[in-house]
Amino acid sequence: MELKIALVGCGTVGLGLLEILDQKRDFLKETYGFEARIVAISDKLKGSILVPDGIEIKRLFELFSQGGRIDQYFGKGKTWELLNPLDMIEQCAADIIAELTYTDIKTGEPATGYIKKALRSGMNVVTSNKGPAALHYHELSSLAKKNNLFFRIEGTVMSGTPVFSLCESGLAGNEIREVQGILNGTTNFILSKMELEGMEYAEALALAQKLGYAEAEPTADVEGYDAVAKIVILSNVLLGAELKPDDVKREGITALNRGMVTAAKEQGFRYKLIAQAKRSGGRVEARVSPQKLPLTDPLSGVMGAQNALTFDTDLLGKVTIQGAGAGKIETGFSILSDILAVHRGLQARG
Amino acid sequence: MELKIALVGCGTVGLGLLEILDQKRDFLKETYGFEARIVAISDKLKGSILVPDGIEIKRLFELFSQGGRIDQYFGKGKTWELLNPLDMIEQCAADIIAELTYTDIKTGEPATGYIKKALRSGMNVVTSNKGPAALHYHELSSLAKKNNLFFRIEGTVMSGTPVFSLCESGLAGNEIREVQGILNGTTNFILSKMELEGMEYAEALALAQKLGYAEAEPTADVEGYDAVAKIVILSNVLLGAELKPDDVKREGITALNRGMVTAAKEQGFRYKLIAQAKRSGGRVEARVSPQKLPLTDPLSGVMGAQNALTFDTDLLGKVTIQGAGAGKIETGFSILSDILAVHRGLQARG
Repeated sequence: MELKIALVGCGTVGLGLLEILDQKRDFLKETYGFEARIVAISDKLKGSILVPDGIEIKRLFELFSQGGRIDQYFGKGKTWELLNPLDMIEQCAADIIAELTYTDIKTGEPATGYIKKALRSGMNVVTSNKGPAALHYHELSSLAKKNNLFFRIEGTVMSGTPVFSLCESGLAGNEIREVQGILNGTTNFILSKMELEGMEYAEALALAQKLGYAEAEPTADVEGYDAVAKIVILSNVLLGAELKPDDVKREGITALNRGMVTAAKEQGFRYKLIAQAKRSGGRVEARVSPQKLPLTDPLSGVMGAQNALTFDTDLLGKVTIQGAGAGKIETGFSILSDILAVHRGLQARG
Repeated sequence: MELKIALVGCGTVGLGLLEILDQKRDFLKETYGFEARIVAISDKLKGSILVPDGIEIKRLFELFSQGGRIDQYFGKGKTWELLNPLDMIEQCAADIIAELTYTDIKTGEPATGYIKKALRSGMNVVTSNKGPAALHYHELSSLAKKNNLFFRIEGTVMSGTPVFSLCESGLAGNEIREVQGILNGTTNFILSKMELEGMEYAEALALAQKLGYAEAEPTADVEGYDAVAKIVILSNVLLGAELKPDDVKREGITALNRGMVTAAKEQGFRYKLIAQAKRSGGRVEARVSPQKLPLTDPLSGVMGAQNALTFDTDLLGKVTIQGAGAGKIETGFSILSDILAVHRGLQARG
């Protein structure tokens, strides 16, 4: 089955997705009978295009490698005005909108508006954008359900490492009582460097910035805001809560120093920035805070920029999944993963 | 949708499944629209029964608690002759046969015969039995496909911890290049005790036997045969190989002693019995052997009777899942997990 896909936003994640679709075209067709036709792209910086017959991805990459814009796809003279994402959604007749614009964790906009427009226009939506998922999951999910559409968000937590799809399939039948994870790779990288190489916090942060793991303005990571957004998503999707980011107790890693990390190590513990959410008397309580884990905890062995999440279930006990938490191809894959899930779902409907 | 289920074999796994189905009846119906009707059971020791209207699980458990047999379900006087599993399969008109007899890793029988009979009779099959999966996976899987049926084996590796369903859903789109895991809880328990509590091998084995983690005759575990069966299954199912147990290089843990474990620890390594399979020049090579892992390896932190498996994928890099490797409820859940997957598959077909 061929699915028509339109990209709202074409930054790192979008480019990762396009690269995968280009390189694995034959594999995806042979293995899953899946074919992708990219019918439209709108990106604030790179321009926009609408091609009902489908874009040739290689040609687009050639254009980019020459410093060109998306709207020069049909030749240099044919540049046109930026197609607003809302207009693009209206005109593209896609089966799936991949919403890949920037995250605004305060408002969820403009992404939430794009997602609503797509769902109201009869299109399935896949996204790795934490804003809409953290602030409006239940509303968007209900809207999708009402219109018999899929709204999928695998990439919002741990990039393409399976979290939501794992709960839908392999863990189905269990009740999840608690989740606990290392959901921010930047802070885990910093803490690993502080422990393993005896760096001070500032030194480890500077290294993370140099290597591209941390932003120049690192507040969202080191003060725990990024992990808060993710634990809100997990709470609302997996534990049925209705939390907002402000409901989460939050403490970052900026108050930790080398001495504390070393002292913990000597006692057989390891500091990790832990995001956790737990059912407790009919409510769900969530927090993000540095915790001293015993070395026997599966999360204590997660080093560097890796992420991991432990599900506490009623039948299987604790199940932990560990993998990449970020990256161009890894997050691009999260979108493919959701697209393949929509593909399976649509095939099932016949 | 209600599915009619028949159990061939009703030992620990079967009892675990029945307990879950009884306790979670409402949850499964509300959450997945799934209802189970147990229409037949045949167990060599506990007797047999055929009840087209479905067995009342609570009543069966009451009978067991009084030391009764399955065939006394309709009253003490009504004991009948043991229904042979092949006859039961023929007569039960089930949607799914749960094959839960004992594992014979040399012949795969009698389980393989029961599975073939079921698939040829138009019934889906779910099993946690390593024999048929390790020796005849491709044949049974083809037979199922030919008859438009499901043949599922989640419980053969890591009990109910998702392995095969994880590859079908969350990891779909990736090519798996290598798998590497701790697939035997008994040996991992022994190695953990040797390292953490300074026990000698014999002492740790005796403790494992006392706690029920190891059999009185521990060869299958400590010499690596159990892990061999599992890595053969993973090789054939996930890497498309056609290996037999004899193709796997095997070395158990019996040659390890406390001194070696302690010396490794001092160098920052940890002994684990590792099962691995790897694509290599068009072939798949598999082995089971004790290895000294660096403490940064996600598998090195897996302590006690837990299991874990790392998938090396082309898009996501390494993804590791850790969880229970055995247990009545955990393996009972593996059967439920496969039944729910069949349920989703049948619903999809409409």
